[in-house]
Amino acid sequence: MAGQVQRQTGVALWRQIADRIRQAISAGAYDETGMVPPEMTLAVQFGVNRHTVRSALAALAQEGIVRAVQGRGTLIERKERLNFPISKRTRFNSGIGEQARETRGLLLDHGEEQANDEVARWLKLAPGTKVIRLETVRKADGRPVSSATSWFPAARFAGMPDAYETTESITRAFAELGLSDYIRATTEITAAHAEAADLSALELTPGAIVLITKAMNTDLDGVPVQYSVTRFAADRVQFTIEN
Amino acid sequence: MAGQVQRQTGVALWRQIADRIRQAISAGAYDETGMVPPEMTLAVQFGVNRHTVRSALAALAQEGIVRAVQGRGTLIERKERLNFPISKRTRFNSGIGEQARETRGLLLDHGEEQANDEVARWLKLAPGTKVIRLETVRKADGRPVSSATSWFPAARFAGMPDAYETTESITRAFAELGLSDYIRATTEITAAHAEAADLSALELTPGAIVLITKAMNTDLDGVPVQYSVTRFAADRVQFTIEN
Repeated sequence: MAGQVQRQTGVALWRQIADRIRQAISAGAYDETGMVPPEMTLAVQFGVNRHTVRSALAALAQEGIVRAVQGRGTLIERKERLNFPISKRTRFNSGIGEQARETRGLLLDHGEEQANDEVARWLKLAPGTKVIRLETVRKADGRPVSSATSWFPAARFAGMPDAYETTESITRAFAELGLSDYIRATTEITAAHAEAADLSALELTPGAIVLITKAMNTDLDGVPVQYSVTRFAADRVQFTIEN
Repeated sequence: MAGQVQRQTGVALWRQIADRIRQAISAGAYDETGMVPPEMTLAVQFGVNRHTVRSALAALAQEGIVRAVQGRGTLIERKERLNFPISKRTRFNSGIGEQARETRGLLLDHGEEQANDEVARWLKLAPGTKVIRLETVRKADGRPVSSATSWFPAARFAGMPDAYETTESITRAFAELGLSDYIRATTEITAAHAEAADLSALELTPGAIVLITKAMNTDLDGVPVQYSVTRFAADRVQFTIEN
């Protein structure tokens, strides 16, 4: 929490203050009360006006970190980001596991297309080979966690859109299509500012950060079965790698 | 490259445009010429003025992505981020390996202190146990890639500051202190906006993103030997996990 906010940085003040408050919550600074200090106190602490603090708290409320309660103040709802393990056994639903009461996977769009160079390289197919594309959003307790575009070899997984729509799970969709087990082979991780499409898909506030994974799954013989580009709301998740 | 830039998002226009140009470079959009299009062309394409485009190109130059050449234009220097593998065998120097001509590790500060709750938990020590703290910056080809705060059990690694300063490498410093091999046990990854300290340590432009790892290394018996919080310039690196 130390240090003044920076002006003219290309990052809005309210966003910087939201980041500071999130860090303080995570570090346990408000554990005793379970509440964020009053707007006026925060405004003085950060040297900004109340309106800026209010914008910061509104962003944190949208992330599910805090909740404003009429006449009482701003309650802390969740201290930590959802933890998303990356390993040979990476699966979304079991990965988020007991951290959420409910997880959902929504199919937004799908199609059959020819693999472009990037998709072909990851799936080890010739460019132009037919692939199935899925656009999905995954939610935990009603809040979007990630949005993904995934490609599957069409020859093997033509039924993927229907199977996913029914099961809301890549793992269960694979099982329905005869693939009972698979392995996360490679994951690349980068970060970027949210784009316009992220704001609506992930219900993000402007200027938010997304963590982006490019990941490839194989069957137990090492044959690629899936390539996905997934965009995670950086304020809502962290990745963990255990070796 | 598609889509208009967004106004009033909390992210400066020049930064959004720098992100778009970086993506286009990475996707190979300018491979034919090896150069970024002229400022005026980019200004028209993005619907902004030349001054904004110039700020975007200056930021990319500082990252080492492009280089302005008097009378010729803006040359593409590097297409991809440095790749940083995360595995049991994670080491900075061999990880960056042949992607850079030269890597360096600079000791900025160090001290002996009592482990706070977080450090104690990661190192599996009682809170208050003496630990050695190192503040370091790692560079590849003269450019800062990451800045780290690392803690080591003082009883075992009292000589760490000297050993690091001589060898510029945690791996070689451990070897000098009698630990010939170690294992990356746990890595947590998050992302955040750069803070003031990041701007100077990592030579970042305002509004940049940092990828943050919290990592714990153990000896071959599983005893923790190091806990580090490392902040990477998100524009310069990506992480890769191979299973």
